[in-house]
Parts: sequence; structure tokens; C-alpha cells
Amino acid sequence: MSVFFTVRRWVYLNLHDDNYRSFLSTCINYFLITLIVANVGAVILESVQPLYKEHQFWFNLFENISITVFTLEYLLRFWSVVEKDRSRSEWAVRWQWVRSGGAIIDLLAILPAFLNFFVHVDLRVLRIFRLLRLLKLTRYFVSLQMLLRVIQRERGAFQAVVFILSIMIVMAASGIYIVENKAQPEAFSSIPKAMWWAVVTLTTVGYGDVTPITPMGKFLGALITILGVGIAALPAGILASGLANELNQRNQRLELEFLEMLQQQGLDIFNDQDELEKLRQRVGLTKEQMHDVIIQLMRERQYADHQGITCPHCGKGISIQKDDRDE
Amino acid sequence: MSVFFTVRRWVYLNLHDDNYRSFLSTCINYFLITLIVANVGAVILESVQPLYKEHQFWFNLFENISITVFTLEYLLRFWSVVEKDRSRSEWAVRWQWVRSGGAIIDLLAILPAFLNFFVHVDLRVLRIFRLLRLLKLTRYFVSLQMLLRVIQRERGAFQAVVFILSIMIVMAASGIYIVENKAQPEAFSSIPKAMWWAVVTLTTVGYGDVTPITPMGKFLGALITILGVGIAALPAGILASGLANELNQRNQRLELEFLEMLQQQGLDIFNDQDELEKLRQRVGLTKEQMHDVIIQLMRERQYADHQGITCPHCGKGISIQKDDRDE
Amino acid sequence: MSVFFTVRRWVYLNLHDDNYRSFLSTCINYFLITLIVANVGAVILESVQPLYKEHQFWFNLFENISITVFTLEYLLRFWSVVEKDRSRSEWAVRWQWVRSGGAIIDLLAILPAFLNFFVHVDLRVLRIFRLLRLLKLTRYFVSLQMLLRVIQRERGAFQAVVFILSIMIVMAASGIYIVENKAQPEAFSSIPKAMWWAVVTLTTVGYGDVTPITPMGKFLGALITILGVGIAALPAGILASGLANELNQRNQRLELEFLEMLQQQGLDIFNDQDELEKLRQRVGLTKEQMHDVIIQLMRERQYADHQGITCPHCGKGISIQKDDRDE
Amino acid sequence: MSVFFTVRRWVYLNLHDDNYRSFLSTCINYFLITLIVANVGAVILESVQPLYKEHQFWFNLFENISITVFTLEYLLRFWSVVEKDRSRSEWAVRWQWVRSGGAIIDLLAILPAFLNFFVHVDLRVLRIFRLLRLLKLTRYFVSLQMLLRVIQRERGAFQAVVFILSIMIVMAASGIYIVENKAQPEAFSSIPKAMWWAVVTLTTVGYGDVTPITPMGKFLGALITILGVGIAALPAGILASGLANELNQRNQRLELEFLEMLQQQGLDIFNDQDELEKLRQRVGLTKEQMHDVIIQLMRERQYADHQGITCPHCGKGISIQKDDRDE
Repeated sequence: MSVFFTVRRWVYLNLHDDNYRSFLSTCINYFLITLIVANVGAVILESVQPLYKEHQFWFNLFENISITVFTLEYLLRFWSVVEKDRSRSEWAVRWQWVRSGGAIIDLLAILPAFLNFFVHVDLRVLRIFRLLRLLKLTRYFVSLQMLLRVIQRERGAFQAVVFILSIMIVMAASGIYIVENKAQPEAFSSIPKAMWWAVVTLTTVGYGDVTPITPMGKFLGALITILGVGIAALPAGILASGLANELNQRNQRLELEFLEMLQQQGLDIFNDQDELEKLRQRVGLTKEQMHDVIIQLMRERQYADHQGITCPHCGKGISIQKDDRDE
Repeated sequence: MSVFFTVRRWVYLNLHDDNYRSFLSTCINYFLITLIVANVGAVILESVQPLYKEHQFWFNLFENISITVFTLEYLLRFWSVVEKDRSRSEWAVRWQWVRSGGAIIDLLAILPAFLNFFVHVDLRVLRIFRLLRLLKLTRYFVSLQMLLRVIQRERGAFQAVVFILSIMIVMAASGIYIVENKAQPEAFSSIPKAMWWAVVTLTTVGYGDVTPITPMGKFLGALITILGVGIAALPAGILASGLANELNQRNQRLELEFLEMLQQQGLDIFNDQDELEKLRQRVGLTKEQMHDVIIQLMRERQYADHQGITCPHCGKGISIQKDDRDE
Repeated sequence: MSVFFTVRRWVYLNLHDDNYRSFLSTCINYFLITLIVANVGAVILESVQPLYKEHQFWFNLFENISITVFTLEYLLRFWSVVEKDRSRSEWAVRWQWVRSGGAIIDLLAILPAFLNFFVHVDLRVLRIFRLLRLLKLTRYFVSLQMLLRVIQRERGAFQAVVFILSIMIVMAASGIYIVENKAQPEAFSSIPKAMWWAVVTLTTVGYGDVTPITPMGKFLGALITILGVGIAALPAGILASGLANELNQRNQRLELEFLEMLQQQGLDIFNDQDELEKLRQRVGLTKEQMHDVIIQLMRERQYADHQGITCPHCGKGISIQKDDRDE
Repeated sequence: MSVFFTVRRWVYLNLHDDNYRSFLSTCINYFLITLIVANVGAVILESVQPLYKEHQFWFNLFENISITVFTLEYLLRFWSVVEKDRSRSEWAVRWQWVRSGGAIIDLLAILPAFLNFFVHVDLRVLRIFRLLRLLKLTRYFVSLQMLLRVIQRERGAFQAVVFILSIMIVMAASGIYIVENKAQPEAFSSIPKAMWWAVVTLTTVGYGDVTPITPMGKFLGALITILGVGIAALPAGILASGLANELNQRNQRLELEFLEMLQQQGLDIFNDQDELEKLRQRVGLTKEQMHDVIIQLMRERQYADHQGITCPHCGKGISIQKDDRDE
């Protein structure tokens, strides 16, 4: 029975624990990433009819292998997750894991294939659902998680933008419908039809399949474009400044941790490369970023040294000379 | 007569007071939001001729109900607003409310329908005016108000951009008119006609219905595009950084209020979840944001504790040791 | 002779001195702004052939009046500018003014019209040169000057972007020329011709008059678009963050001046609305912005008051209690 | 033999040392920049068939001269680089240089031409490789290096964006393929073909050669466009804020160096224009930027003077009066 627990713990470490790093766990990660990417490639290639017909057997074989691997992965994760918190009931831990984002994505990646046994859906649509396996990649990429976190944090701003954009699309479509309806009764036959023009224009895609042709329509179109063109580009701006903030905050966090360690242990930390490396990996910065931070810290420290007193929150010296105060 | 005042106060609380939250006021808000959205949907669907002809009766009924509800809402608001400031004359308070932005939007939402009794305007145009009811939604969305505030605050920058954009459009249109006039006498017959090309190009919409065809025209077009392409995207950038600033300032404001409360009441606030919740709602942050702020504060506080003295404006310890000074 | 100097001074104040504000100087400014805008409108309308032929007389009359006014303005400015610095030689001051940006723009606005007497250029091209009068508006709009200053300050970044964009256009054009040359020998007959496609694509204008049609060309085109799409939008981002910075710095400057005045004069400044108004106009902020700053200052001040000591550079209290130190 | 070392040192200074500035080294730099630009011009012009056939001799001559010059440059750099560090073995220094970025670019600029002797590749493709000489320009432009550094530093963010963009392109292409496949079996015959539409739409290029035509396809297309339009513009935003940061950091570094020099040497530095000029060139700021920094420093310094104590890291006075503490 002790073997059972040892195996479960070993499975848990390899599949669940991000901080556990062995040769095997790295291999498993790379194998799963490769399999996911290959699955997406297969879905794309299967859509090319001649290719699919010729190699139908291999495509199906690959899909069956993939489904088996992903199902096995899900079951092993489900079984081993209890090692996470042994103080609670096994099924409580499992149920909590099943409801987590990662587990739902894992389930979505295999469910459509099994659904096929019960309900017979269009094969083509079913194949597309396999693309959901792409989402499994989120687990392996920190930068992707960061982007999602920014999207979540700035969702207030996004909400406002989507709202404003919707208003602008409705207003623009209604205006152009009134003006162009008589000249182009086909393309602008109703507001919903005019909305296609509004979306294509306000996002600056501008296919040119529908354009205003009356002078009045062109004037209104120009006005709408000038006023609205910024709104569609807003989310990118918000995301960009959000990402920049996120990265800045991470750097500041590292600085703070560095400073705390420096004050507790003195300057020796600069010689203790292993400690630095551990800290770097814990915080998740690149070697280059760590280097920048240390260079900056050392310069400021040096600078503060011949000033006397150091301010702990910015690492800079304060010019109130010690002797001034003690007299 | 006391009943009269009680009813008026009750109407006031439900319709005007944002801080008053009862089950009824929430219901009223959701009902009005739904009605506004449904009105916009009706306007869009009515423009589809076959659909409108078939269900004309129901569309008209819905419009009449809407108009009644919005008129009632306006009158009740007008009547009850006097409760806002009972020290001033009733009509002075009402007149002030009538001139406020929210009241003007409310009036614009119902006026076109009543206008129809006196002046007989084109039904289609009249229907479009109903879209103004969309603006009533501003009252219910904080993020939308924030966006409008940013637009208002950065209007200096927008003014400059619109100005520069106008200059660029005029210059681009004139240049391309000179160069392309002979090759395409129809599309570039005059500067106003060439402006359509200029707007479509500088905003990067690029329908492709009018493009330069002479080598000289293509060279000038390429030059204009490269130089001007940034200007049209400027408003988005300004808005994005403005929004980011606005959100940052809100967070800082919360932090300051938290710090003040912490200093007045000690650390107990961390156990007083109700106080925190009240504060959170007052400032209007999400639970997640509040969580981030508290985590950050606690870490800094902990850090300052073994330093001795805390700087109240950044919550960080100052390394001037107490004993240093007392000696 | 004293009358001569008085008149010259009076002309100087009205035309040159931005801080001098009389009813007349305001009228002159608005008259000149209107005239400039009307001139641009005339140039645009003249390009519409039927309109020009019908009203030729009035167009020419308006042009002659405009030229007279602008020439008079230039001469009066030239004559009166000596009042700016009476310690130096009159002609030295004038020569300095003639070489200034504003004077060159003023000259460019009238020169083409006079050039016509000597050299007979194409009337249509000559008319376009009148658009240079638009630049005279820069004098009257602060926000426009700000934008130009940002462009000048960030010119290092712009230089890098234009450079990168040029490289990308050359590379993209060469690549697509190699790949698409055989399939579309007309549209991609040489690299210069392929550059039209490259510019239209990398700026995301995308007219669609020239597109890759071979699978290889589409793949290369997609790759180029994804990699290059950001570069063209860079200038807008740089400008936007530059403008945001510029506006922030202005606000900080006002805060600093406010703080200095507060420390020299005490809190009475809050009651001295005239002083505030003067300061506001001197710094060039809007009333709303000033309001924000004062509100913020007062809150911080109030907060610092029950803390004891105030830090002059951020207006916040420092928690080192006085009694702590005096013991 | 001493002459040999003197010559080698002289070659080293002119070709390698950026801080060495003589008339000759400036001439060499400008000559090489001109030659690189002329080479690119030649490649572009050679692609115009009639032009190339007429002047074939001159084009070939120019290419041969260029190849000679660039080869000579490479050999001289290779030979003289040992002067950089005379404490190490000559070949170790040379090998280190050969592996550096600049040397690899230099090699890429000449290698394709020599390759032609051994392998006979298509002349047209070979010519395009000459465009790699453009990269040699990086050595001469600081702003370009800065942009590359920003791209490298923010590569985490770029990675996330490319990843998200790939996911969106695959998802969008699959969706539109399902919906439009029947209506347009040619343009949307498979997912890879639909990806052309997805790229063109998500980057907002929008040629219009392929557009959805079914109502369902238009609805899906509109949804994809609205959601995805921001992602393609993200890299620009990240680059822009990265560049702004980079420029800010450079300014702050200058300020810090200025402050250190001021504290070591007193205020005399303001009179010592030569020192300032040297510092300015060392840091690489424009004269205008230096001016701004000094103005700001002087104002803050003046302000601090009547406050008593100065904080060295922000140059502002601290209001804790000296007498308060000494009592």
C-alpha cells in the first residue's frame, strides 16, 4: 500500500507540481506540448479534402492515439491531485480540481470525441472542436497567463470599449442606412445589413465590398470613420499599457525581494550566485532582467554608501549627515 | 400631507439616489436597462421591411409602452428631485436638474416621439432618433462614465489631433488631386472628391474603390500613407493612456483611504470585513482589486515593522533607527 | 515723434504680445483665424470646376483681399517687432524675427501669390500653395504647438521607426517580387512596383488593387503582414505617450508653482481667487484641471496637518512625531 | 615592427573605436553608410528589367567595387580587432569578434557574392541577398540599436502576442471555413486557405479579395474582427511604451550622473560648459534634452536652498528644520 502512495505522489509531482523539475517531468511537458501542436496541425490538414482522403487511416489513428493520451492524462491528474492537500478528503480535493479552469479545459479537449459515441454530429464541426485542445497550452506558457490576467484586470475598461463600440456600430449603421438606402437598396436594405459595413469600417478592415456611393453617404462615412477609428484600436492600447504595467510590477517585486534579502544577509548575496539563481527562478524573470536589476542596485548602493543613511524603499541615501543629528 | 412627502422621498431614493440600494431600486434599474436595450433592438429589427410589415402592430404597441414608461420615469424624476436639497426652492432644484446632462438625455429619448404629433417628419428618420435612448445607459455604467471623463479631460490633445488630421486630409487631397486629376478625371475631379480617398487612406480603412494609378500618384500616396498613418491612430493611444491613468488614480485613491483608516483604527481593519466591503463599494473597486491592494499593504507593513518607523504616504519603513536619534 | 513710438508699441502689443489681452487684439486674432480658414475653404471650392467658373470673380476678389490683409499683417509685424527688445539695434531684432519659424510661415503664405508676377506657373499648382496659409494657425493653438514639440522631442524614436519601416518595405517588396513575379508579371514587374503593395500592406491600408495570388505569395504576404503590422502603428503610440507625458509634466509644473506660492503666502491663497486665476492663465491650464489640483492639494494638506511634519516635495506628512525627536 | 603595431592601432581606432573621433574616421563612416545605401538602391533598380539591361555593365562594376570594399573592411576589422584587448591571445580576441553580432552581419553582407563561385544559384535570388547589407547600418544608428534592445527586452510580451494571434488565426479560419465552405467552395476550400482571409482581416489590412458573403459568415466575421482587431495592434503598443521607457531611463541616468557630479564639484559645473558638453556626448542626449534637465535641476536646487536640507535622490529639500532637531 505504501507503493501505491509512492506512485501516486510520483505521478502528482510529475503532472501537477510546477516547482518539481526532473528529467521525466520535462519530457512529459514537451511531449504534451508537441502532441497538442500536432493535433492542431492535423485538424488544419484534415480540412484539405484530397490530403484527408489519401491519408484518412493515419489521421484517424493519430486522433485515436491523441484521445487516448489526453484521456489518460486527465484520469491520472484526477487520481493524483489528492496529494496536493492530504489534510482534506480525497474527493473534496478532486471535486475542487475538476471545477478549476485547467481541468475544465482538459475535459473540453477530450469530451467532443466521446460525445460522438452518443450523438452523431457533423464530422466537420466535431473536428473543429478539437481545436479547443489549443487552450491546454495555457498551462505551459507564463506570458500567456500574464496576458489573460491583464485582460481580466482591465475588464472594466474593455467593457466600456465594447459598449461604446456597440453604440457606434448601431449609430453608424442607422445613419448610413438612412442615407444610402435609396442609392443601394441591396447592400443597405436594413440596419442589420448596414452593420456589416459599419463593423468593416470602424475596425479599419475596409474590404471595399460595400462602400457608400452618394456624396452624402461618403461625407457621413468619412465623419464616422474619423470619429470612430480610434475606438476599435482602444483595446490594443489598454492591453499594451496593462502588459507594460504587469511587467513593471514584476520587476519591482523582484527588486523588493532582493532588497529584503540584502538587508538580512548583507552584501554577500552578490557572491552567492546559487541563491540569486534560485530567487530568479522563483520570481520568473529572465537572466538579463536580473542582471539589469543587480547592476542598478549596486550603483545605487555604492552611491548611498558615501552618503551615510539609506532609504529602504528606494535604496537611495538620505543626505541628513549622521553627525548633524548626534550633536 | 406627510404621506405625500414620504412617497416623494421613497420615489427619490429609488430613482435618484445611487447609494440607496433596495430590492425594488435594483429591479427598477434592471427593468429600465432591459427596456432601453429592447428599444434599440426594436429599431434595428423594424428596419427589416418584411419583418416590420408582418409584426407592425406589435412593434407599435411596444413603442407606445416604451414611450409611456420613459415619460413616466421623466415626470417622476422631475417631481421627486426636490428631495435632493430641501433647503432650496423646489423649482430651483428642478430647473437645475432639467439642465443636467442626464435629464437632457432623458428628454431627448422621449421628445422625438411627441414631436410627431405636431410636425410630421419622415417615419424612418424619426425611428432612428429613438436610438438616442441608448445614451440613457450611461447612467448605469461606471466604466462608460469613466471613458467620457477621460475624453473630456484629454480634449486638448484630441483638439490637436483633429486639427492635424484635418490639415493632413486637406493637404493629401490637394496633392493627389493635382497628380491624379488627368489620369482619373472622374474619381479625382475636385479636392472635395479627393478628400474621400484621403480619409479612407489616412484612417487605414482602404476600401480600394478609389486608388492612385499613375506612378507619381502611387509615390505620393505611399508617402502620405507612411507619414499620416499614425495620426489617425493617435486618439486611441491618448484614450488608452488616459484610461490607464484614470484607473491608476482610482487605485491610489483607495490606497490612501485605506491607509488613513489603518492609521486611525490600527490593524483591526483587516478583521473587519464589513468595513472593508463598505469602503470597497464606496470607492467602486472590484473585489479582486481590493484584494491586491490589501496583500500589497500587508507585505509592506510587515516589512516596515522590523524597520521601526513608517512613512505614511507610501507605507514603507524609514531606516533611520530610533536609537540613532535619541542618543 | 512720440506718437510714432506710441503707435508702434500699440501695434506691437496687439500683434506680437501673447500676454496682452484687449478687446481689439482678440478681435484681430479671431478675424485672422477666420480669414485663414476661409482661404482654405476657397482653395477647396475653387477646385470644383463648375463652381469656380460661375463665381470666378468673387473667388479672385477674395484672394486679392486675403493677400492684401496677410501682406499688411506681415509688414506691420516686421515694423513693430522692434518693440520687443529696445536695447538692441532695430534691424538686428527684425532680422532675428524674419528668421523665426512664425515669420517664415507668414512669408510662405504670401510669397507664392507675388511669385506669380515674375514667373508664370501652373495656376492649379499655385492655388495649392495657398494651403500653406493653414500653417499660420499654429500660432493660435497651444495644443498644436504641444504636438509639434512632442514630435521634435521624440524625433529620435521617429527616426528609428522610419528607418525600420524603410527596411521592412524594401525587404517585403523584394520578397514578394521574387515569389509573385511569374504569376503576376504586370503588378510585380520590379521591386519599385512591388513597393506599392508593400506600403499598402504594412500600413494596413490594404486597397486590394494588388494582392498576392500564389500560395507561396500568400504565405509570404501573411508572414510580412503579421511581423510588420506593428511598425507602421508605432509613431502613433510614441506620439500618444509623448503627449501624455507632456500633459503630465505641465500639471506637475503647476503643482510645484502652487506649492511654492502656498509656502510663501500660507493658506490664504485658497481665498485669493484672482491670484489663482492669474497663475492658471500663466501656466495655461484649463479651469477644470486647476480645480483637480487644488482639491488634491487640500486633501493632502489636511491629511498632513494631523501628522505633524510636511514633506515639501510631495505635500504629504512624515510620521516621525516631533515629540519622538525632542525627547 | 613598431610601425606595424602603430598602423594596426591606427586601423583599430578608425574602424572599431566609437569614442575615437578624427576627420578620417568620420569620412570612413559616411563613406560606408553611403555605399550601403547605394547598394540597396542598386538592388532595387536592377529589378527594373529595361534599366538593368541597358546599364548592366555599370551595375556589375558597382557590385564588384562594393564587394571589394566590404571584403577589405571585414579583413581589416578582423586583423585590427586584437588591439581591443592586448592582454589576451590575438586569435582568441579575433574569434570572439567573429562570433559577435556585428561581425556576422558583415560576413552575411559579403558571403552570398562569394558563394556564387561555388554554387550557381538563381541570379535574382542572389541579388536579393545583397539587401542583407542593409543590416550593416545598425552599427551607425543609436536609435536603431535602442529599438532592437526594446524588442529584445519585451520579447516575453511579443511571444504572448504571437501565440495569441496564432490561436486567433487558427480559430477564425476554422470558424469561417465551416460557415462559408458551401457558399464559396473555392475561396474557403480548406482551413489553410481560410487562414489567408483570417490574417488579412485580423491585421485589419482587408484587401477584400476574399470576404464572407453568407449572413452567418458576415456575423461570424464581424465578431472575429471586433474581438481580434486589438491583438494585431498590440506589438506596436508594447514597442511604443517600451521605447518611451527606454528614453525615460536614459534621461534619469543623465540626471543621476549630473547630480553626482554636482555633489562632488559644487555648483561650478554650471559654468563649466566643456564638462557638460563632454558628459552630454558620453550619455548621448541631444542638446535640447540636456538643457531641459539643467533648467529643472537649477529650479529644484534653488527651491531646496531656502529649505535647508536636500534629498540627494530627488534634489528636493526636506522640511525638517535643522534647529528642530538640534534642540
